[in-house]
Amino acid sequence: MRCRCLIACVVSILLFSAFRTIAQSTELDVALAVEHVLRQQTDAWNRHDLEAFMSGYWNSRDLTFFSDAQMTSGWRSTLQRYRTRYQGEGREMGKLDFSELNVQPLGPDSAFVRGAWHLTLSDGKTPHGWFTLIFRRFPDGWKIIHDHTSAAQP
Amino acid sequence: MRCRCLIACVVSILLFSAFRTIAQSTELDVALAVEHVLRQQTDAWNRHDLEAFMSGYWNSRDLTFFSDAQMTSGWRSTLQRYRTRYQGEGREMGKLDFSELNVQPLGPDSAFVRGAWHLTLSDGKTPHGWFTLIFRRFPDGWKIIHDHTSAAQP
Repeated sequence: MRCRCLIACVVSILLFSAFRTIAQSTELDVALAVEHVLRQQTDAWNRHDLEAFMSGYWNSRDLTFFSDAQMTSGWRSTLQRYRTRYQGEGREMGKLDFSELNVQPLGPDSAFVRGAWHLTLSDGKTPHGWFTLIFRRFPDGWKIIHDHTSAAQP
Repeated sequence: MRCRCLIACVVSILLFSAFRTIAQSTELDVALAVEHVLRQQTDAWNRHDLEAFMSGYWNSRDLTFFSDAQMTSGWRSTLQRYRTRYQGEGREMGKLDFSELNVQPLGPDSAFVRGAWHLTLSDGKTPHGWFTLIFRRFPDGWKIIHDHTSAAQP
């Protein structure tokens, strides 16, 4: 009977461990989910829909956005920054492309992304640079909780 | 006997779960460990010891460093970038300070850090900006696996 009890304990632990593993997304699942958000963002940008673009960001006061030496806090302020910078007088959104994407899961519910961004403007200028994004999984999907974007100095 | 077996199984699962929890650092432990690495880095910088400063980085070809529109890959190239930029002819390391540090654990073995950097140079100039660091825990301690640093445009 002792032997049976021991086997039952070992099986219990193995099953418990297996359920935990299954509950955690595989690295591939995370990468696919995060890349999907980024694809939706570039599509939204290129049809000049800033609100849809912003749905990839965590709608929270705790969202942070670093750009060069500027720090923006909160979803609303980040949207306003984009509006001023790309929809203000004499500004344009241009065509956005991401490249060299590298998604690295950091746990079952978080990941970071490295990548390059390129804008093509109607006057032929092509601002570009790198970004680092921290993603977290929420009940309504993967969202950017921190964005650090930098540009080539003009 | 069935009842005993059931109790043994439940106790096994609780113990297994408890050991997993204990093995994972608390958020406070992670923050303290990461802040310690950053303090060691600023101390090393301010005594102009670049090799000691670089010991906070993952010694790997997979380390990445983004600065404005430049991407540097690997520990050796990152050290070389610092040497050229801060120990080259007519250059200086100055005095480095980090501020507004915010360490956020992303799992038992990873964290990201937001913060501001300020350099004070002998000519009175004060280059400054923001950084985002991704840390991972290795057997020899917490190391930066990705650094994104940006500066105020001059």
